[in-house]
Amino acid sequence: MANPSVALYLAQRLSDLGIDRVFGVPGDYAFSFDDAVEECTSLKWVACANELNASYAADGYARRFGAAILSTTYGVGELSALNGMMGCYTERVPVFHVVGAPSRRITHQKLITHHTHGDGVFGNFEHLSQSASCVSAVLTPANAISEIERVIHEALKNARPAYIVVPMDSGKIPVIGTPIKGAPIAKIQRQIAVPSEVEAAADGIMGALKAAKNPLVLPSMLLQRYGLKEKLADFLNATNLPFALTPMDKGLVNENHSGFVGMYKGGSSTPPSTQDIVESADLILDLGGVVFEDLNTGLWSSNLTPERMIKVSDTWVQVGHKVWIDTALSEVLDALIAKATKFASKVKTDQMQPLALKGVAADATNSENFYPRLQRMLRQGDVLVAETGTCMIHLGAMQLPDGVGYESQMLWGSIGWGTPASLGVAMANKEGRTVLVTGDGSHQLTYNEIGVMGRYNPNLVIFVLNNGIYGIEDVLSEMGHEYDDLAQVDYHKVPEAMGCKNWITAKVTTVGELEAVMSRINQANSPAYVEVMIPAAESAPKSEDIKDRAYKLRTPAA
Amino acid sequence: MANPSVALYLAQRLSDLGIDRVFGVPGDYAFSFDDAVEECTSLKWVACANELNASYAADGYARRFGAAILSTTYGVGELSALNGMMGCYTERVPVFHVVGAPSRRITHQKLITHHTHGDGVFGNFEHLSQSASCVSAVLTPANAISEIERVIHEALKNARPAYIVVPMDSGKIPVIGTPIKGAPIAKIQRQIAVPSEVEAAADGIMGALKAAKNPLVLPSMLLQRYGLKEKLADFLNATNLPFALTPMDKGLVNENHSGFVGMYKGGSSTPPSTQDIVESADLILDLGGVVFEDLNTGLWSSNLTPERMIKVSDTWVQVGHKVWIDTALSEVLDALIAKATKFASKVKTDQMQPLALKGVAADATNSENFYPRLQRMLRQGDVLVAETGTCMIHLGAMQLPDGVGYESQMLWGSIGWGTPASLGVAMANKEGRTVLVTGDGSHQLTYNEIGVMGRYNPNLVIFVLNNGIYGIEDVLSEMGHEYDDLAQVDYHKVPEAMGCKNWITAKVTTVGELEAVMSRINQANSPAYVEVMIPAAESAPKSEDIKDRAYKLRTPAA
Repeated sequence: MANPSVALYLAQRLSDLGIDRVFGVPGDYAFSFDDAVEECTSLKWVACANELNASYAADGYARRFGAAILSTTYGVGELSALNGMMGCYTERVPVFHVVGAPSRRITHQKLITHHTHGDGVFGNFEHLSQSASCVSAVLTPANAISEIERVIHEALKNARPAYIVVPMDSGKIPVIGTPIKGAPIAKIQRQIAVPSEVEAAADGIMGALKAAKNPLVLPSMLLQRYGLKEKLADFLNATNLPFALTPMDKGLVNENHSGFVGMYKGGSSTPPSTQDIVESADLILDLGGVVFEDLNTGLWSSNLTPERMIKVSDTWVQVGHKVWIDTALSEVLDALIAKATKFASKVKTDQMQPLALKGVAADATNSENFYPRLQRMLRQGDVLVAETGTCMIHLGAMQLPDGVGYESQMLWGSIGWGTPASLGVAMANKEGRTVLVTGDGSHQLTYNEIGVMGRYNPNLVIFVLNNGIYGIEDVLSEMGHEYDDLAQVDYHKVPEAMGCKNWITAKVTTVGELEAVMSRINQANSPAYVEVMIPAAESAPKSEDIKDRAYKLRTPAA
Repeated sequence: MANPSVALYLAQRLSDLGIDRVFGVPGDYAFSFDDAVEECTSLKWVACANELNASYAADGYARRFGAAILSTTYGVGELSALNGMMGCYTERVPVFHVVGAPSRRITHQKLITHHTHGDGVFGNFEHLSQSASCVSAVLTPANAISEIERVIHEALKNARPAYIVVPMDSGKIPVIGTPIKGAPIAKIQRQIAVPSEVEAAADGIMGALKAAKNPLVLPSMLLQRYGLKEKLADFLNATNLPFALTPMDKGLVNENHSGFVGMYKGGSSTPPSTQDIVESADLILDLGGVVFEDLNTGLWSSNLTPERMIKVSDTWVQVGHKVWIDTALSEVLDALIAKATKFASKVKTDQMQPLALKGVAADATNSENFYPRLQRMLRQGDVLVAETGTCMIHLGAMQLPDGVGYESQMLWGSIGWGTPASLGVAMANKEGRTVLVTGDGSHQLTYNEIGVMGRYNPNLVIFVLNNGIYGIEDVLSEMGHEYDDLAQVDYHKVPEAMGCKNWITAKVTTVGELEAVMSRINQANSPAYVEVMIPAAESAPKSEDIKDRAYKLRTPAA
């Protein structure tokens, strides 16, 4: 049998990982890969509304599955996706970004062609897309087999995007050499460590933990990126060490695990006692690299001195002044589990509690009565997607029921991410519903994706909290302004207009209406879209007191 | 009186050009400029749905007014706008892209903050945004006055975007020095030429024209970018030289000007005789730099040898082997007009004709009966915005009534551009309606901007040609594929769902319905949105024969 074409081989080799969707927008330079996706029976094309949305959807899919494919065209397409891909780079999400480029028959003749500066120069945009990737390749029939192996290896090793250029004619030519059949992602050893370094590092960590009075673990979301969620649970159970999560790492461990001391966010921790528990630990094991970013720390109000932290990064470990290199997260965890002894937990904690059920049927909907009901609606297998905004502050502080996943994009924080990301999450999440909570300010950036959702009907429930303003920006702004006002969209009418058939749609203004539609959603199997009216004035938790701290750092001294 | 803050001074100095809108999305790092825009009484904030849309809207505004302002935030915002800004770079549209950056109080402390890689490193994205601009600056109180002058000068000189970074705290501090009050854009000398070179170049051009048997002019859209449309008309009238336009340059001269020989597009010219007229000219005066790009030449089917072309570029002129440098378009045109003599036009031409009015009331709508009616609907002062796609092929070939403007983005060709661009065009066009024609494939990328339009109610008429597929890609593809199918959106329901009040909205499936809604639109003053059903099979003009030529160049030889 003849070898597959470069484009088909690429599609097949990526699908070997277990990826079953390709998110993207077709384009004439990308036809060879677009065609290949249709030809590859294990991949389904998801025609997103635009490239940014497609990159967010791929991001969401990769967060749940482990990797994803994005397909765009040269110049216009790839640049539209750049913000989304940069988010994947920042948040350590391996997405294979396949970009169709002009045929070499065109580029070798230096023909003037569309999607260029009109100067016969090609390759003007490669460095831009490369800036959002950890590895890149331009495929030819001769290099495709080896380059694709390199690209897959590097992307999975670094948990970051890969940028793969397929010139249109190269894509149609059979690969030269012997095609490789790859393994599913879960079977792949993603990082290769130096065993002696791992062993010494694990000894160093265990020694320090044993010498400490009240050690505590802060595990990071990077563990989930490397598929190590179960291994983390094994380690926590084997050692009985207490642990906290920062909002950025929420969803990594069940929140009514007996060792869980709460959501740590400096002065805005939940429950508030968590701050003291975490900051009074004499040793903190940072597993994966917690990000002490402004929104993740109550605006840098956390207080953890580096001297009492053990840092287990993706490729190195530091205990005190000792640093081991060429380690690997998975192998360090294995070694720690092998050496584990039970610690007596020395901390007392106010366990996180379900939110009190406030409000009665006739009350107007607001944050106080919405979130407790959302919390009770969630069930095992669901994944909650939290858009960046005031809702993320509420959701980060809300106890998740066991077995409920959680995705947010706190560090990159690109508003609009949540809506398309929830499509990708839903397509990867075969175990339950995907529940998106977004504000109208964020939703408007990307809600053209609703039409796409109507075509594919994912298992998705969308709550749009409509307060008519950019709530988070109004909170952060020192003055409060007209530019934070939003267009007055009738969100609940959007799914029907965009062609969604048999969706549950509703606009709710009272607690009774909210409860009624939640009950319908819980009994039905169809996608749902609920516009929840929220008063503009109360959208942010008052206790945050962000405004004052933000003001001081962001503006000149008085 | 105290000096204005850096951000307010920037806003004022840009508004001195006559710009009266700022397109953008607010963001916390951008608050100092966002605040300044609200404070500056001559500027109005236009809160776009997202940054890509905002960049397209700024692009549209700048095409009509001459310049525009885009405001986005650090990282996430500016990167989302990059494709739109790259289109402005390619198509020579000066947009001032103002990006709010983290406060220097944050960056000097290397604090970990959102919209970064979480590494305390800042400036990671500057080079990306710079790649879509001809000039850039990071403003401080000390440099703001001089840097802003430099940036304005360079952007207007090159007719390309400027990238201006305003760190949040710098933006709030008064500028140091003496603020400058600038002139309106029309009063600014944009390029500074060497007079002796201009004089010699003009002599060279006139000499060559006089020596030719049947010279012909191809003026380029770059003349409009430099505000030289009237000067071009003066030159054409003063010399009586015949001229053609490529589709990319459509809208530059009235199409029933007696010297106009038709739309030149190689083998796809309109009328077809135009190809022979243009290609049989023994001398062609290329005024501004016509772009012989694939879609502008019927897939490189034009045949103009460089030897018989005079090239008047923005900064140099070439006649035969003689090249003059440091010229300027405006001054070359002045010199040519001063030296002009009347030429006897030696070409005969089939003048472009209004399209024949095909179809009767009961007929289903299609391209054959839509475009003639659109043509008759247009009137003096209107600007037609042609989205990239099959509609652009039809519109490029359609004779424009006198005084009707035309905007398209043929070279960069980013689908989705038309919808937000038409908002920007409408806000700059005070003389009539803006009429957008787009296909559903393009519209879906950016139609979340409809909600924004509903808020500002521009003088805008939108025709969405719904054929259910990416028509242009189906045309260009060698196979015809599932990935070109689109979500089945009920487009005519979108404006109401997105909060547009008192708009004329309709879905038309017959000629009678089309005529009825066009008549309502012509009698009313409200924005209108018409979904026109078009059969998928006939969306592209058959005579293009693009498929065969595209196939040969884009795919491997059989």
